[in-house]
Amino acid sequence: MTQSTPLEFWFDFASTYSYVAARRAPAIAAARGVELVFQPFVLGPIFAAQGWNDSPFNIYPAKGRYMWRDLERLCADAEIPLRRPSKFPRNSVLGARVALVAREDGFVEAFTRALFHANFAEDQDIGDPAVVRAVIDGLGRPGAEILERAVDEAHKPLLRRQTERATALGIFGAPSFVRGSELFWGNDRLDAALRFNG
Amino acid sequence: MTQSTPLEFWFDFASTYSYVAARRAPAIAAARGVELVFQPFVLGPIFAAQGWNDSPFNIYPAKGRYMWRDLERLCADAEIPLRRPSKFPRNSVLGARVALVAREDGFVEAFTRALFHANFAEDQDIGDPAVVRAVIDGLGRPGAEILERAVDEAHKPLLRRQTERATALGIFGAPSFVRGSELFWGNDRLDAALRFNG
Repeated sequence: MTQSTPLEFWFDFASTYSYVAARRAPAIAAARGVELVFQPFVLGPIFAAQGWNDSPFNIYPAKGRYMWRDLERLCADAEIPLRRPSKFPRNSVLGARVALVAREDGFVEAFTRALFHANFAEDQDIGDPAVVRAVIDGLGRPGAEILERAVDEAHKPLLRRQTERATALGIFGAPSFVRGSELFWGNDRLDAALRFNG
Repeated sequence: MTQSTPLEFWFDFASTYSYVAARRAPAIAAARGVELVFQPFVLGPIFAAQGWNDSPFNIYPAKGRYMWRDLERLCADAEIPLRRPSKFPRNSVLGARVALVAREDGFVEAFTRALFHANFAEDQDIGDPAVVRAVIDGLGRPGAEILERAVDEAHKPLLRRQTERATALGIFGAPSFVRGSELFWGNDRLDAALRFNG
């Protein structure tokens, strides 16, 4: 076990750069002996508080065009599979709820990787419960039972608390990394966050 | 002389991350044997077209708080001096006009470094012609004469053309780098732009 400060990885399953970070973070953190804490959340309420009702990549077309090309280059460089989703952004609320259950059950890393893969490498609609269930089943876990827990009224406050905590941490986009009291925004800050002496 | 594709460096003197990029780019480009082409412009008209009449770092406070802390960390890491400007953003139109004259006269790199330094290391008002003139004088160039050329009606279309070209290139923020037909946004894409086989 390491004594260093864990790295919190805040991600949204709809977020393109979160996908890249989710592919990179586990190995890079492990190589540095830093514990990675998965923090699923949804950007929707945070964007809404900024006056946006859609992804900024849709609201600002030049930014969106750039992002897709940048993502292609990043994925090619890092040998990460990419098929541009036919719908963007996809509804990521159910995915985030399931990830919180998966964290309780000890398979959040595998689920996170698999659901991002469905969205950004297989163009599947991760907002569809049938898709999420198949992803869970594919990990050898009971999909129907986990979906039921994820959407149970008793469980729903968990995701709301994630969003509140994200807001309190000053998070305004995804992915974000938190190391001690330091916030880092973006896939391209992963290495800085791991180097930071927090 | 190198045969590789030059790297265009698009920057705005009001932009914090442009300051960092301006400090880093000349040495990094030279080390790779890539010619750096200084492309001063102003983001104002581009932001206005996106519906913003201020810096997004002011419009979105969480983003702004993050940026200033991120900038502190970046500057500390790279040993770049930083004193947070008492006014942000500063008017960068005159600076951009003078940089275009300096490019004609062969001292754009020195002027760019010096004017950024005035804004972000000395908290000087770079929108004030007296400040810009002193910066030019400090480089051993005739400040009064160069200012006069910069604001001459015959010269003004140059900056307008820069903005038009930036828009045509898909630029939506600063700094941006253009290598061949590839656009890279942000100080943290400098290395990727230099590596790119464009």
